[in-house]
Amino acid sequence: MIRFNCDYSEGAHPKILERLVQTNMEQTPGYGEDEHCRRAAQLIQKECGRQDVDVHFMVGGTQTNLTVISAALRPHQGVISADTGHVNVHESGAIEATGHKVLAQTGCPQGKLTAQMVRQVVESHYDDETQVHMVQPKMVYLSHPTELGTLYTKRELEALGQVCREKGLYLFLDGARLGYGLTAPGTDVTMADIARICDAFYIGGTKVGALFGEALVLANPALKEDFLYLIKQKGAMLAKGRLLGIQFEAMFEDGLYYEMGKAANQAAAVIRQACLQKGFSFLCDSPTNQQFPILPDEALPKLAEKYAFANFGKTDETHTAVRFCASWATPIEHAQALAQDLLAL
Amino acid sequence: MIRFNCDYSEGAHPKILERLVQTNMEQTPGYGEDEHCRRAAQLIQKECGRQDVDVHFMVGGTQTNLTVISAALRPHQGVISADTGHVNVHESGAIEATGHKVLAQTGCPQGKLTAQMVRQVVESHYDDETQVHMVQPKMVYLSHPTELGTLYTKRELEALGQVCREKGLYLFLDGARLGYGLTAPGTDVTMADIARICDAFYIGGTKVGALFGEALVLANPALKEDFLYLIKQKGAMLAKGRLLGIQFEAMFEDGLYYEMGKAANQAAAVIRQACLQKGFSFLCDSPTNQQFPILPDEALPKLAEKYAFANFGKTDETHTAVRFCASWATPIEHAQALAQDLLAL
Amino acid sequence: MIRFNCDYSEGAHPKILERLVQTNMEQTPGYGEDEHCRRAAQLIQKECGRQDVDVHFMVGGTQTNLTVISAALRPHQGVISADTGHVNVHESGAIEATGHKVLAQTGCPQGKLTAQMVRQVVESHYDDETQVHMVQPKMVYLSHPTELGTLYTKRELEALGQVCREKGLYLFLDGARLGYGLTAPGTDVTMADIARICDAFYIGGTKVGALFGEALVLANPALKEDFLYLIKQKGAMLAKGRLLGIQFEAMFEDGLYYEMGKAANQAAAVIRQACLQKGFSFLCDSPTNQQFPILPDEALPKLAEKYAFANFGKTDETHTAVRFCASWATPIEHAQALAQDLLAL
Amino acid sequence: MIRFNCDYSEGAHPKILERLVQTNMEQTPGYGEDEHCRRAAQLIQKECGRQDVDVHFMVGGTQTNLTVISAALRPHQGVISADTGHVNVHESGAIEATGHKVLAQTGCPQGKLTAQMVRQVVESHYDDETQVHMVQPKMVYLSHPTELGTLYTKRELEALGQVCREKGLYLFLDGARLGYGLTAPGTDVTMADIARICDAFYIGGTKVGALFGEALVLANPALKEDFLYLIKQKGAMLAKGRLLGIQFEAMFEDGLYYEMGKAANQAAAVIRQACLQKGFSFLCDSPTNQQFPILPDEALPKLAEKYAFANFGKTDETHTAVRFCASWATPIEHAQALAQDLLAL
Repeated sequence: MIRFNCDYSEGAHPKILERLVQTNMEQTPGYGEDEHCRRAAQLIQKECGRQDVDVHFMVGGTQTNLTVISAALRPHQGVISADTGHVNVHESGAIEATGHKVLAQTGCPQGKLTAQMVRQVVESHYDDETQVHMVQPKMVYLSHPTELGTLYTKRELEALGQVCREKGLYLFLDGARLGYGLTAPGTDVTMADIARICDAFYIGGTKVGALFGEALVLANPALKEDFLYLIKQKGAMLAKGRLLGIQFEAMFEDGLYYEMGKAANQAAAVIRQACLQKGFSFLCDSPTNQQFPILPDEALPKLAEKYAFANFGKTDETHTAVRFCASWATPIEHAQALAQDLLAL
Repeated sequence: MIRFNCDYSEGAHPKILERLVQTNMEQTPGYGEDEHCRRAAQLIQKECGRQDVDVHFMVGGTQTNLTVISAALRPHQGVISADTGHVNVHESGAIEATGHKVLAQTGCPQGKLTAQMVRQVVESHYDDETQVHMVQPKMVYLSHPTELGTLYTKRELEALGQVCREKGLYLFLDGARLGYGLTAPGTDVTMADIARICDAFYIGGTKVGALFGEALVLANPALKEDFLYLIKQKGAMLAKGRLLGIQFEAMFEDGLYYEMGKAANQAAAVIRQACLQKGFSFLCDSPTNQQFPILPDEALPKLAEKYAFANFGKTDETHTAVRFCASWATPIEHAQALAQDLLAL
Repeated sequence: MIRFNCDYSEGAHPKILERLVQTNMEQTPGYGEDEHCRRAAQLIQKECGRQDVDVHFMVGGTQTNLTVISAALRPHQGVISADTGHVNVHESGAIEATGHKVLAQTGCPQGKLTAQMVRQVVESHYDDETQVHMVQPKMVYLSHPTELGTLYTKRELEALGQVCREKGLYLFLDGARLGYGLTAPGTDVTMADIARICDAFYIGGTKVGALFGEALVLANPALKEDFLYLIKQKGAMLAKGRLLGIQFEAMFEDGLYYEMGKAANQAAAVIRQACLQKGFSFLCDSPTNQQFPILPDEALPKLAEKYAFANFGKTDETHTAVRFCASWATPIEHAQALAQDLLAL
Repeated sequence: MIRFNCDYSEGAHPKILERLVQTNMEQTPGYGEDEHCRRAAQLIQKECGRQDVDVHFMVGGTQTNLTVISAALRPHQGVISADTGHVNVHESGAIEATGHKVLAQTGCPQGKLTAQMVRQVVESHYDDETQVHMVQPKMVYLSHPTELGTLYTKRELEALGQVCREKGLYLFLDGARLGYGLTAPGTDVTMADIARICDAFYIGGTKVGALFGEALVLANPALKEDFLYLIKQKGAMLAKGRLLGIQFEAMFEDGLYYEMGKAANQAAAVIRQACLQKGFSFLCDSPTNQQFPILPDEALPKLAEKYAFANFGKTDETHTAVRFCASWATPIEHAQALAQDLLAL
C-alpha cells in the first residue's frame, strides 16, 4: 500500500532528525528560550526580509490557528473564512470553543476569498443601527495553499491586504503547506511578500517535512503583546521548545524547506499530467502537492488496492473527486507508478 | 410617527401592569422560588398538556437561547439553524461566546429548516473516519414563527421531531413570537403539540405583551439537570423572579396571551390585504404579525414620513423589501391608516 | 412572617412603579436608544460630576459583572477580588465561564481589599521569567458596600486607584447596594469620588428600590469601545430598554435613590442598636442596611418564628452569625419589633 | 553551568530517540490511528492491570489537563485543587479559559489534598438553598508526585477515591512526573493502584525522558465518550500521532520508564543527603527527583556560579528555599559534585 492520502505519513526529513540526534544531550532552557529557537527565528526573519517580526514556534496547525485567533479578537469579533477553510470545518469547533464565530463564506472561487467578498461581508455587518446585534468582523483567515491546493497571486493578496487595512481587519494566513505553495511553478508570491502583506502567518512544518511544528510570524505590533501568555494558556508551549527551534534551523539554514516543497510538487505534477492526458477533469486547478482529479467510479476500487487516497465526494452519478497528496517524502517512482496505473485505466 | 418597526415599542398590556401594581408590596422569596412563579408554571404545564415539564422564567430571548444551548451541549457539539435564525445573525455571537458552533443552513424554504436538511447535515458530519475533526451536530434550533413570520405545520414539526430522535439530537424551538404563531389563521399547531414534539421551547413574553420575560419549557429530562445553575451563571436569574411569574400568570389565567396574539395578527392582515390588493409581492408568505411586502423604492420616503418600519434590503433595482410589524398594542386604526396609505401609493 | 432575609423581597418603590404605568403606552425605540435612557444617563452623569462617562443600563448584578469583566480583559488576564467577593462565590462561576480567573484574596480586613494586597498580588505575578505561566492580573473588583456591609473610606479608595494606575489595572466597583453605602452615617465617599477614582462602577437598582436594573458607568475610554456588542452578546440588552431608563429617571431626578438608601440604613441602625445593647458582637462593623450580629444559638428558633433572616454560620460552639437585612421597603415598625424581640431574648 | 533547574533540559533518552530514527520512513495513518499507538496503549493497559481503560497520547501537561477537565465538566462545575496545583498557578488560566473555576484549597499538608478537605469543600457547596449560586464541585485534581515532590500513600489515595465516589466527583491524577513517583523509595503506590482508584490520570513523558508526550488513561466510561473530539478541538491531536506511540512503546516495553525514574531519584537522594548532613531543613519531605532545601542566603550566589536551580522564595530574613531538580539525564557525578559543594558551604 502506497500512501497518497496525506502529507504526514512519514516522520521527518532525515537531515532534521539527524540534527535532533546531534543536539540531544545539550542542556538548554525550556519554553523556547534557547539558542536554537533564537537562531531559527533569525533565519525566518531573514526569509521575511524584516527584523521586526516576532517568531513563535508551536506544535500543530489547529493549535496555532486557535491561539492566534483567540489572542487577536475581542469577544464580539469574528473571523472571515472560506467555507472550505480549515478553521471552519476541520477543527472540531476549535475557534468557537475560544468564543469566536467563523464567518464562513460560500462560493469562493477555487477555494479562495476575494477582496470583494471581504468588503461585502464587512459592509453588510456595519450598515445600520443594529450592527451591535451582529458579530463584528475583525480578521480574515485564508490558507496558502488553500485546502484545495490552489494559490493566491501576489495581486490577490495585495488586494486582500488593502481591504483589511481599509476596514481595520487583521489578515492571517495559514501556511500549513506553505513550502509547497512557495515553490509551486508559476507562483509570484514569496515569503517576504506574505510577511509584508499579512498581520500574521505561519510556516508549516508538520506537513512539509518536520516531525511536527509550525513557525508563527507576527508582523502587526498589536498582535505581539503578551502573546506568550496565550501560547501557554492554550497548552501550546512545548517544555522542550528547542525541538522546534532545531527543526526550523535545519529547514531554513540552507534551503531544505524549499527543496522539500519542490520535490513534492514535482511528484504531484507527474500524477496531474497523467490525469490531464486521460482527459480527467479536476475539482480545481492546483499547482501544488495536492491534486483533486475527478475519476470514473469504477476506477476507485482498482486504485484502492494499491494506493491510499482521500474521497472528496461524488460529482455526478458516475464520477467521484479524489485527492492524491504527494509530500516531501514521496519517491518520484511512487508518483510514476500511480501515473501509469491512471493511464492504464 | 406610528411605529410598525417592531413588536416591542410599548410597555406591557395594561392588565399585566395592573397585576404588578397590585402585588407590589407582597414579600416573596427571590430567584423564582415564589408562589406566583409556581402558579404560572402550573398554568403553562396545563397549556402544554403535561405535568412533567420544567418551567423556568427568564428575561429575554438571546439570554434564553444562550443559556439553553450552553446547558445542553458538550464543548464539541453544535446547533443546526437556518442561516436566517436569530442565533446565527442577531445575537452578536452569543452562542459562539459560550463555545458552540452554529451550523447555519442556507436555502431554507420560507426560512424554515426541513427534516431532510437536518438529516443531510447530520449524515455529512458522521460518514467517515474524520468525523472527530468536525463539530458534532447535537441540537436543532428553529423559531416558530420564524424570523420571516412563517409557520411550521404540525406535520413539518413531527418530521423534525422524528429525525431528531432518530439521530440523537435535541429539538429546541424559539417561541419569541409564539403567541402570534399559535393564533395565526390556518395554523394546526398548538402549544401541546410543541410540548410533545420538542425537547425544549420557550413562550415569548417580551414581544407578545409582557414588559419582558420568556417562559422556558424543558421537556427532555436530560436538559433539566442542574439547569438553575446555568440560569444563575449566565446572569439570567432575576432577583425578583416573581415579576416574571406575575406576568405569565396574568397572561395565562384567562387567555390574555392568545387574545393579544390574535389582535396583532388581525392588524397585520389589514396591511397584508392592502399589499395584495396593490399587487405587491412578498418576501415570504406570513400569516402572523410581521409582513414583508416588496415595495417600489419611491414609496419608501413617503411612507417613512408617517410610519417607522424596517428595511430588509433591495430585491431588484427599483424595489425594496420592508417589514411592517404589528403587535398586541397596535390599534386597528393604525393598521387601517397604513393600509389606506399603501393603497393610495 | 417579616422578611429581613434580603433587600429584594418587594417590588419597587411606588413612585417608580407609577412612572412605569404613566409611560406604558409611549412608543419608543428599543435597546436603550430612547429618551428616557438618555435623560437617566444625563442625571447620572450629573451625580458623577462628569459628562464624559458612558452610562449603560442592565438588568442585574451578575450580568453586569460578567459583561464588564469579559469586555475588559484579554483571555490571559484575571481579576483580583476579596475571597468573599460576589464574583468569587455567588455567581456560579459566571466570570470563569467567560474565560477569566478570579484571583481571590484571603484575609481581607472587614471584607475589604487593600492597596497593599493588590500591590503584592501584582508583584508576585510579575517578578520572574515564568510570569507568562501565570494569569496576568489586570483588574481589581471590589464592592461598596462589601458583601459584609462595610464601606471603603475615600482614602482607601484613592489608594486602590493609585496602585491600579501604577500597575496598569482597571478598578471596577460593584455598587449593587451603592444607595445604602452613599447614605451611610459617617461615610466620606460620594458618587463623584467613585466616578473620579474608578474605571467602571455600577449603581444598583435591584436591591435599592427599583423593580430591577443596574446603571453601569464607564469612565475609562478603553472600556467604552464596542461595549454595546458585549451587552447584546451576553443577553443583557433589554428589548424595552426604556424600562430601565424610566426607573433610573425616577430614582435620580429628585433624590429618591438616596432617600431610599437612608431609610434602610435607619431601620438597620435600630436593629444594630438593640444588638449592641444586648452585648452581642458582630461579624464586622457595618453602618449600612445589612447587620451581621452573632447570636446565641438558642435565640435562632425563637426569632425564626416571626422573622426571616440568613444564617452565616457557627462562630463557636454556642453562637451563630446571622444577617438581618433592611431595605428601602422596611417599615421602621418592623425594625422596632425585631429590636424589641432581640432585647427580650 | 550544570542545570538542576528542571527535568526537561535535555532531549530524550537515547533509546527513545533511536526508535524514532528506526521508524522514521514507515508510512502510517495519522492522528494516533497507527500500530505504534495501539501497541503502546496495550503496554500501558498491562501496567494498569486492566484492559478496559482508554489510552490517548497527547503532547504536554497543560494541554492534557485542560482537555480532560473541559471534556469532563459541565459549564457550572469546577475542579478542586491544592492552591499549589499546576492547574491553579502555572497554566496561565488554561482551565478558566475553558470556562471552569479551580476551587483552590489553602493549607494542604505537604502540598497534598486530603479526603477530609474534599468532603468539606463539597459539603460547603451543597448545604443550603442557594447552592445553585455557587460553582458545583465535580472533580478532584491532584498531582503525584505533587509540585513539591511529595507522594500520596495508597491509603490516602483510597480515601480520596472513596470520598469522590460518595460525593459523585471525578478523581483526576496529574502524573507529569509519575515515573519519579512510582520508583521513589518507600512508596506503596503502583500504576495499577492509580488505574483502579482514579477516573483518569496521565503518565508523564516530557519530564521523564521522552522528547515530549503524555499518556492519558481514562478509566471511567463517562469520561471516554467522544473524547477524541475534544483532543482535536483543543489542538492536542498530533498529526503524526505515531511519534507519541513510538516513544511510549520504547518506555514501556522493557521497563525503561521505571529505570529513568529510579536514576533521577538516586541522584536527588545524593543531594538530599548532603543537605541533611549539613543540617539544612526542607520545604517538604520529598523522596522524588525534586528537592527543596532551605539554604542560607549567602550560599546562593556561590552555588549559582556553577549550577542552575530555582528560587522558591525567602523563608525568613536570612534563608531561601530552592529547588534542585534531578532528571533521568542527570549523571550521578553531577549530583555528587553539587553534594560536595553543599557540604563545603
